[in-house]
Amino acid sequence: MITSIFWIVPVASVLALVFAWFFFRQMMKESEGTETMAKIASYVREGAMSYLKQQYKVVASVFLVLVILFSIMAYGFGVQNEWVPIAFLTGGFFSGLAGFLGMKTATYASARTANAARSSLNKGLQVAFRSGAVMGLVVVGLGLLDISFWYILLNAFIPDEALNPTHRLTIITTTMLTFGMGASTQALFARVGGGIYTKAADVGADLVGKVEAGIPEDDPRNPATIADNVGDNVGDVAGMGADLYESYCGSILATAALGAAAFVSSGDIEMQYKAVIAPMLIAAVGIVLSILGIFAVRTKEDASIRQLLKALATGTNLSSVLIALSTFGILYTLGLDNWFWISCSVVIGLLVGIVIGQATEYYTSQSYKPTQRVSESGLTGPATVIISGLGLGMMSTAIPVLAVVVGIICSFLFASGFDFNNTGMGLYGIGIAAVGMLSTLGITLATDAYGPIADNAGGNAEMSGLGKEVRKRTDALDSLGNTTAATGKGFAIGSAALTGLALLASYIEEIKIGLIRLGETVLSFADGRTMEISKASFSDFMVYYDVTLMNPKVLSGMFLGSMMAFMFCGLTMNAVGRAAGHMVEEVRRQFREIPGILTGKAEPDYARCVEISTKGAQHEMIVPSLLAIIAPIVTGLIFGVTGVIGLLIGGLSTGFVLAIFMANAGGAWDNAKKHIEEGNHGGKGSEAHKATVVGDTVGDPFKDTSGPSLNILIKLMSMVAIVMAGLTVAWSLF
Amino acid sequence: MITSIFWIVPVASVLALVFAWFFFRQMMKESEGTETMAKIASYVREGAMSYLKQQYKVVASVFLVLVILFSIMAYGFGVQNEWVPIAFLTGGFFSGLAGFLGMKTATYASARTANAARSSLNKGLQVAFRSGAVMGLVVVGLGLLDISFWYILLNAFIPDEALNPTHRLTIITTTMLTFGMGASTQALFARVGGGIYTKAADVGADLVGKVEAGIPEDDPRNPATIADNVGDNVGDVAGMGADLYESYCGSILATAALGAAAFVSSGDIEMQYKAVIAPMLIAAVGIVLSILGIFAVRTKEDASIRQLLKALATGTNLSSVLIALSTFGILYTLGLDNWFWISCSVVIGLLVGIVIGQATEYYTSQSYKPTQRVSESGLTGPATVIISGLGLGMMSTAIPVLAVVVGIICSFLFASGFDFNNTGMGLYGIGIAAVGMLSTLGITLATDAYGPIADNAGGNAEMSGLGKEVRKRTDALDSLGNTTAATGKGFAIGSAALTGLALLASYIEEIKIGLIRLGETVLSFADGRTMEISKASFSDFMVYYDVTLMNPKVLSGMFLGSMMAFMFCGLTMNAVGRAAGHMVEEVRRQFREIPGILTGKAEPDYARCVEISTKGAQHEMIVPSLLAIIAPIVTGLIFGVTGVIGLLIGGLSTGFVLAIFMANAGGAWDNAKKHIEEGNHGGKGSEAHKATVVGDTVGDPFKDTSGPSLNILIKLMSMVAIVMAGLTVAWSLF
Repeated sequence: MITSIFWIVPVASVLALVFAWFFFRQMMKESEGTETMAKIASYVREGAMSYLKQQYKVVASVFLVLVILFSIMAYGFGVQNEWVPIAFLTGGFFSGLAGFLGMKTATYASARTANAARSSLNKGLQVAFRSGAVMGLVVVGLGLLDISFWYILLNAFIPDEALNPTHRLTIITTTMLTFGMGASTQALFARVGGGIYTKAADVGADLVGKVEAGIPEDDPRNPATIADNVGDNVGDVAGMGADLYESYCGSILATAALGAAAFVSSGDIEMQYKAVIAPMLIAAVGIVLSILGIFAVRTKEDASIRQLLKALATGTNLSSVLIALSTFGILYTLGLDNWFWISCSVVIGLLVGIVIGQATEYYTSQSYKPTQRVSESGLTGPATVIISGLGLGMMSTAIPVLAVVVGIICSFLFASGFDFNNTGMGLYGIGIAAVGMLSTLGITLATDAYGPIADNAGGNAEMSGLGKEVRKRTDALDSLGNTTAATGKGFAIGSAALTGLALLASYIEEIKIGLIRLGETVLSFADGRTMEISKASFSDFMVYYDVTLMNPKVLSGMFLGSMMAFMFCGLTMNAVGRAAGHMVEEVRRQFREIPGILTGKAEPDYARCVEISTKGAQHEMIVPSLLAIIAPIVTGLIFGVTGVIGLLIGGLSTGFVLAIFMANAGGAWDNAKKHIEEGNHGGKGSEAHKATVVGDTVGDPFKDTSGPSLNILIKLMSMVAIVMAGLTVAWSLF
Repeated sequence: MITSIFWIVPVASVLALVFAWFFFRQMMKESEGTETMAKIASYVREGAMSYLKQQYKVVASVFLVLVILFSIMAYGFGVQNEWVPIAFLTGGFFSGLAGFLGMKTATYASARTANAARSSLNKGLQVAFRSGAVMGLVVVGLGLLDISFWYILLNAFIPDEALNPTHRLTIITTTMLTFGMGASTQALFARVGGGIYTKAADVGADLVGKVEAGIPEDDPRNPATIADNVGDNVGDVAGMGADLYESYCGSILATAALGAAAFVSSGDIEMQYKAVIAPMLIAAVGIVLSILGIFAVRTKEDASIRQLLKALATGTNLSSVLIALSTFGILYTLGLDNWFWISCSVVIGLLVGIVIGQATEYYTSQSYKPTQRVSESGLTGPATVIISGLGLGMMSTAIPVLAVVVGIICSFLFASGFDFNNTGMGLYGIGIAAVGMLSTLGITLATDAYGPIADNAGGNAEMSGLGKEVRKRTDALDSLGNTTAATGKGFAIGSAALTGLALLASYIEEIKIGLIRLGETVLSFADGRTMEISKASFSDFMVYYDVTLMNPKVLSGMFLGSMMAFMFCGLTMNAVGRAAGHMVEEVRRQFREIPGILTGKAEPDYARCVEISTKGAQHEMIVPSLLAIIAPIVTGLIFGVTGVIGLLIGGLSTGFVLAIFMANAGGAWDNAKKHIEEGNHGGKGSEAHKATVVGDTVGDPFKDTSGPSLNILIKLMSMVAIVMAGLTVAWSLF
């Protein structure tokens, strides 16, 4: 069922891509500055691209294996939808393309931003932010394009005759959902690989450069400095982009599936159709409003940091307020039942995102007490810095969790007509809250991607020896980027949690389809009752599979899920440790074997360091990534549907809290160090400063590798479960 | 129903107390050595006792408030069993008494151990270990005595006539269960307060003494050194004792309640009675076998560390093997249905405990790769020590979780006749596995309490200036204590997890009784079915309250539970940080203001440091403790039974994994430092050593404050929920 109003969706997605192209062209017209600046930028660009190529090779082989597996399941054993192998591929392809384009733009933008900062601060902000906007718009554009493509395709190909109409839309939405697994797999490698790469380079560069040789950050004498700048691009641009691409598509697709499910038993095909396209429409209008917001970001020539921050906030706030208001209009026009309260669910999602962002800023910015206290603990040495940072991170989990809990309860109650037993509509409410939170992703991701671009511009300015005035400007831009990066991380985690919940809820739908594919038509309950599968509600499936909290399979799944979150972090932390170790050895070797590096007479072998980081990341990302893919499959084969749901919930609740803890502790350590560098507690070079440098180094893998990787784990495990649902219902040990 | 076989239980408990008295007298006969030794021991003893008095005052006021609250609930509103206020008090009293006696013994034993070590290593081991055995036997003796007392009392007072017999035994067991809340509350303050005390003193002493002034550990010139030794007693003896007292009673009582519940619907009063007393009988026989094991611990005069370890292992292994074999005999003699397989569940519990202990040793001992790798990372500075330690801790969660999962599934399946739907008997199986794990607590706790006694003996020897030979012997004893302490921690966490599960399961029973007390007789399901409450099974209640994993109240509860675990750790970490800060200031002040301390001419003001630690701990323990008590109450008032179960499970799964992570990371850092002190990577005083000292300092609150406090949180939240069940069923917002 495709009517006129649906066409807004592909049109908006194309619009996003057109504007991305426009911003890209605009940026490319700028000059890269001096020859040195262009040379350094080209080093970073080549390093980043060569890494991405390597990564895509690995990802391609994993995709090949999975596609073969899915094909055997689909065409061989019939425990898989026949569209899945192809859907999986497109999800992965579009996500990879978005990462490629975003990173290409970022690496072209850094020197241009530095050069623009030579003329004015505002000019620098414009170049960096609009280049970040390319990433934001490419992600939402390609995401929504893929969704539109599949919706139109499946509507054309899935036959009407054999199915009752409500069941048909369920088939369409649950099939579409599986393309999210492609995006998830791509995101996994991008986040884990990129995260390991960036922190191996950063930690390695810091340990030898800052601590041993005593040279400043981004000093061209440090052989690892190019690798460090490459890392910002592969980790923070490509990794973050793939992460949010997955959340964006996942939340829209899951909500569509939940919308289809909610109206199956009533048989109201009209309303079901409306519930399915509602999240897509909100996303489409969100794109238009994001573009509007992007144009609203501008500042005065002599702006202070506070004014810069306000300029960015104006853009995102404008988009948020407008989408909140528009949602009521969209759902009213669409004529969705209970449109007013469902719109309220969308607004709740937006609010949860804002609260989490604010809380993150409070706990990680040196303008507030918590991080200042971590700085102060530097006076008693590195041990107290670590203790107080860990304590802060743990305490900081309270507000985000409370926000999510309030968000879950409110969005559920609003959409369900304040009826806890109306699970179908209630879960739809949670899903659409996630869509609301992500609706302005075009601009929020732009502010995120802006950070590493500004960071690289600063690096470029330092390495090219630009004047003090320019350095000051790029520092201001960079500092702004640190704040947006921290808020962006909170946003990414919050959206991962809500998306994870929505995916989990739609897992039940996949189970239903899986049972039907096996030829089952009736659920036979333990107490002798029977029920037609097509009419069974969420609660019926919960009772059928005994997914209650006293089932040992559920309990086991939950313990395993909690453990998975910790294991995954442990693996990525150790990976960073090992890869950084190799980098340290290489930098020491170059200092030792290439005479004249430290006096600036000889150029270090940057390429060798880039290569080491690339190899290290490629090598180290395999084990944690495979673990994340295999765990839900194995759990399903042993404990069945019941155990898988336990695993997903355990992983989600522990993973969410652990991710916030790690991201905030890491952010606070970073800024505690900056607070001291601003002249407090003895300033740069003091014992307190050295103590906070230790904190900052520990915080690097916390906030940029393990923490963000958990976002992926939360979503990916659900996605794998969804795609494997057919196999899980067909066979399990218990 | 009290028959002849039951009398074994009180007899065994008295036997434990008699032997405790015997070992105590034996130890008191030893000489305390030189005058200095006696003086130092008396300082530590006075400090410890004055701390305990302070703590009991705080605890008494909390108890007063709670008893008034329970009395109002019981006698005023009728939403509480009328025995609860008194049962609550006895649980608290006996737990406090056990802590008091255990700690008194330990503080008398330290100088005597040091003095015995002057004559031989074996003599030292005997004195220290048998003093530790006093603690072990007092805990199991008083615990089982309290259980016997209530079982006999309630059997005498609860009238037969008005009730059907199976219901009567349910009332008795669920009432008894509430005395565990007294033990829990006592344990909370003991663990949290003791944990903060010991680490504030330790961290404070290390930061100024070792790092700033460069004097060795336990040096009499360090003003905080007595407080440090007091800390070992209040944290590791009294705290650990109260923790395991709670697990011991909790597991037996919960299993009895689950046993009563399992036979309600069949109405088989005979078998119900047998199921109720089975865990008590196993515990009683376990006491006898523990005493046997204690006598088996002896070693040759010239024993090496390896032989010492073997001597301890011989005792615990002997007890474990014998209880495993005896269980089959006990349950066969008792004539419990399915006795063979239920005995297998008990053995599974024992095995899980052993596997967790072994895994803990592997991950935290410097004899194995993981900790050695942490040492090695000291070569690149403190940051990599922290990163690798955290990574190790996270990875180390895998084996214990897998062990518990296998334990849950096996003990459930064995006891349920391999039927996942037989939830009643299955949960009984999980409970009795916990009882199995804790059955040899008499001797395992003896090896735990041995650790701090040996540690204090070493401190005493150092401060009294005993010869090198004696120091070498006390070092050997101390080193052995470190290993047993690490294994003991793993054991405490594992038993807390299984006990927490058993408590959680019996929560449903309390809900049932709560409903009946409110005058309800019938459950009306959402789909229109009805069912008599007294005949409802676990699964029926789960369906009635919709405790399925897609209920937003369950989801919210789980997120809150996961968050509680992190919050609680964050609060205790910060508490240690603050209290240690005060200690640092005080020590610095004394070095500054009392001339001649560092040259040994003036005696530092030890008492002032003891006072600061006491005040700090008293003050800092309030917030986390109240949070743990209030959270389940508030969750119940808002989200009802459904939300509470979510909270408990979320707290349990996240708390368990987090506790292992913290304990093992802390243990590994401690031993990584020791590994370097043994002469590796540059040895004592090298940069690598300094780096690992940072790790050790961070690890202190990990392994001795926050980690162990989580054990209490896991159990206490369930206990609070159990006691508040009447209120929760009577009223909740949603």
